[in-house]
Amino acid sequence: MQEKLELLKAPQLRDRVISAEEAASWIEDGMTLGLSGFTRAGDAKAVPTALVKRAEAGEQFKVNVYTGASLGSNIDKMFAEAGIVNKRLPFQAEPIMRKEINTGGHLFVDQHLSHTSELLRADVIDTVDYAILEAISVTEDGYLIPSTSVGNSQAFAEFADNIIIEINTAQPQELEGVHDLYSPKQQGERGPIPLTKPDERIGTKGIPLDLDKVKGIVFTHQVDSASTIVPPDEETEMMANHLLDFLRSEVKSGRLTESLMPLQSGIGSVANAVLHGMINSEFENLVVYSEVLQDAVFDLIDAEKVDFASACSLTLSEEKMEQVFGNFDKYRDKLVLRPQEISNHPELIRRLGLIAINTALEFDIYGNVNSTHVTGTNMMNGIGGSGDFARNSRIGIFVTKSIAKGGDISSIVPFVSHVDHTEHDVDVVVTEQGYADLRGLAPRERVPVIIENCAHPMYREQLWEYYNEALERGGQTPHVLEKAFSWHTNFKEHGTMRQMVPGTSRDLSNV
Amino acid sequence: MQEKLELLKAPQLRDRVISAEEAASWIEDGMTLGLSGFTRAGDAKAVPTALVKRAEAGEQFKVNVYTGASLGSNIDKMFAEAGIVNKRLPFQAEPIMRKEINTGGHLFVDQHLSHTSELLRADVIDTVDYAILEAISVTEDGYLIPSTSVGNSQAFAEFADNIIIEINTAQPQELEGVHDLYSPKQQGERGPIPLTKPDERIGTKGIPLDLDKVKGIVFTHQVDSASTIVPPDEETEMMANHLLDFLRSEVKSGRLTESLMPLQSGIGSVANAVLHGMINSEFENLVVYSEVLQDAVFDLIDAEKVDFASACSLTLSEEKMEQVFGNFDKYRDKLVLRPQEISNHPELIRRLGLIAINTALEFDIYGNVNSTHVTGTNMMNGIGGSGDFARNSRIGIFVTKSIAKGGDISSIVPFVSHVDHTEHDVDVVVTEQGYADLRGLAPRERVPVIIENCAHPMYREQLWEYYNEALERGGQTPHVLEKAFSWHTNFKEHGTMRQMVPGTSRDLSNV
Repeated sequence: MQEKLELLKAPQLRDRVISAEEAASWIEDGMTLGLSGFTRAGDAKAVPTALVKRAEAGEQFKVNVYTGASLGSNIDKMFAEAGIVNKRLPFQAEPIMRKEINTGGHLFVDQHLSHTSELLRADVIDTVDYAILEAISVTEDGYLIPSTSVGNSQAFAEFADNIIIEINTAQPQELEGVHDLYSPKQQGERGPIPLTKPDERIGTKGIPLDLDKVKGIVFTHQVDSASTIVPPDEETEMMANHLLDFLRSEVKSGRLTESLMPLQSGIGSVANAVLHGMINSEFENLVVYSEVLQDAVFDLIDAEKVDFASACSLTLSEEKMEQVFGNFDKYRDKLVLRPQEISNHPELIRRLGLIAINTALEFDIYGNVNSTHVTGTNMMNGIGGSGDFARNSRIGIFVTKSIAKGGDISSIVPFVSHVDHTEHDVDVVVTEQGYADLRGLAPRERVPVIIENCAHPMYREQLWEYYNEALERGGQTPHVLEKAFSWHTNFKEHGTMRQMVPGTSRDLSNV
Repeated sequence: MQEKLELLKAPQLRDRVISAEEAASWIEDGMTLGLSGFTRAGDAKAVPTALVKRAEAGEQFKVNVYTGASLGSNIDKMFAEAGIVNKRLPFQAEPIMRKEINTGGHLFVDQHLSHTSELLRADVIDTVDYAILEAISVTEDGYLIPSTSVGNSQAFAEFADNIIIEINTAQPQELEGVHDLYSPKQQGERGPIPLTKPDERIGTKGIPLDLDKVKGIVFTHQVDSASTIVPPDEETEMMANHLLDFLRSEVKSGRLTESLMPLQSGIGSVANAVLHGMINSEFENLVVYSEVLQDAVFDLIDAEKVDFASACSLTLSEEKMEQVFGNFDKYRDKLVLRPQEISNHPELIRRLGLIAINTALEFDIYGNVNSTHVTGTNMMNGIGGSGDFARNSRIGIFVTKSIAKGGDISSIVPFVSHVDHTEHDVDVVVTEQGYADLRGLAPRERVPVIIENCAHPMYREQLWEYYNEALERGGQTPHVLEKAFSWHTNFKEHGTMRQMVPGTSRDLSNV
């Protein structure tokens, strides 16, 4: 215990050490919780788990749950299974929770990840009753040193009525000094955010705490959940190569140099694989300014391709965690972790001129992107930071495989069944087939490059058929509204988006 | 002539005075023009008109036309009729041009108004061969003093190969000193934009010119086209009152004071009327930070409600022009005109915390907004600045009348036929029926407030019917995809969105 207390340097807090169960006992029905955690990293683990135990023991209650992004440690899963969530925001990525959301079991507010702290600051969403924040330590002068993610923790600490801190002794103490905490003032009263380069520091090394609000300190010892990304496959390698070809053409045209612009890459296997593809490229002295750093970024640091990486979260595979935290001196000076409001801030994304790479579920012939809703209704994960980045980056890129389910789904459709990113915000789309550079193109110019460069050959003719029929009706964005979603309804009814030959079970692509 | 030359103070330029016809003769097939002008104000008039005359005389050529926004002086109309446009961006609002666009006569790239200058700076869209810019004068040290709009003129001057200046002696000389010109450096090399209050000045009083690029000076004398806004009517007054009620509730809750936050209001009669509704309200010491100042802002200045107004354009009725420019000393210290990149910049909109009021064509039961495409295909005007403002403002508000065409069209539909603003960016929607505050609400929570507060009573039951059927299928955003656009296709087929009773010509609302 003495050893642990050395991580709790603020003397005023030493008599507030309690058990997770005691802390969890303070949570009441109807309260709002602000949990640390972003893409399975740095989540508060013990108190939420103890809270679930109360429900499992038969207590009836529901809480609103605000986080940075998705939680690891099965928290989202346990919360969903226990049925204790009233409203969840701003992002999740958990199958059981997803099911709960889509069946109306609980509410989910899908938000731009840079917006949540602004809404708390403006007092627009329910005040957080308890912020429950993981830390590696609390300094003598009252700064909370976060662990593997910063997420919304600073905003939760600032605007919550009460704070519970989980000091996780399983998290690497080496992280101290990597964080850079900065919270803008209220809108209308703030100055510019002074960051002008990804490697600059603009804030404090920890979250300044109002010690009066800190009601309890819980010691825990539990490593983060490992990342669930899968290794690159043949198709993601093809996508990476197409993306590299596009970037090469930008260098050739003189618009970019070989160190490109700061790179952002969304969460997930595809974006990770695409970034990974840069290892054997000619690009060098790269800088990353992203929301989450996955394995690929550390591979790129190891390969001396990436000089510096800024994000709000570290989400690594088990192997990579060991490697990185076992050799942290190698990485310390090349990393900074910021609040997600800063990593995803429009002001900074636009100023720095990022190249932003995010994953689409589907996009349409005009370049509108659906990145959240399966067949327009069922939530996958959430928009996350993709809107913050795509709208404000220098080059907004979306990647997806051209087909899914063995070809029964085309990711390129006449009309996306849900719009997360409009054609105004989508510069380049990439599939394993190729890339389409949409910048400066009118809708009618976008169609041929999207169909010919990105759609799977088995769907090209069918896309042309739709477009040609639409074109006869005219318009800036020609459509046949009564058939706009027919691909999605065909999939639902017949199990495939491929056009069926009337009266047979064969599809047209075999005729 | 001597008197005119006094407006051309830079001595190097005095021997470059030419006729509009001579200037127009330099334009070649395939070139790209950057024309001053934003919402009918400050457009280059003489050279474009002379260019049209070349086409009318039988010459065959096409040019790309970049502007600030819509042009007055019939330029867009004449260009469209003459068939000399290849590609037009980023906004227009002219019936003949609209028809050309929708029939595929020429291409139109619909852009966020803050993005165009960034695309020029990054060399992503075609380089401007000739910038043709209206001015009230050129200073001795080579600054172009714009007239009634700034728009994209600074970017055109900076990135064009050649510049032609139209010094318009019919524009009020009193405008000198009102402009504040500022151009960010390339992305990655720039610092913060230093503006922190709407009334601050951060730049120069004119556009710095590379005098070597100035190929010709044309003197003109032609007033701006007057604004075409129509006066408030009963319904827009009702909308204004609902908006005021919403703002009052924000003041009551302590989230706003009676001087609110800086106001932005989109172009058009409805937004103008809504702003006008503040005249007899308790709100005072208001500040405007908008892209265009219409009549209502000056009425509010006269009523001592508005203390200061910043924009990139002044678009006034004939009567208001006379009043304002006839008494300009009264307004001079209360105005500043900036580049549209600055008036619409995400960095500044978010920092200042605007209340943004823009017009929707239609919105859906989840709060997605269509502000550009009639029945999903035909372009009306363009997205303009509405995306810049809605996404980044403190409160993003969209207004529209709940029905159109005598009730045959409902502006509230199951699924918007085109998405310009996703539910993430739409905080409040207002119709003459009432307002719906959507902040912090999940999609399923949004539906009842939108239907009950905003939809016209004649469509409420029909909307509920759709939603209840969708709800049976579940999802984060429940939909019946095969019926999602049935309202639009019904309108096309039967001339009304009202549900028809099978086999009769009566609609269900009369049953």
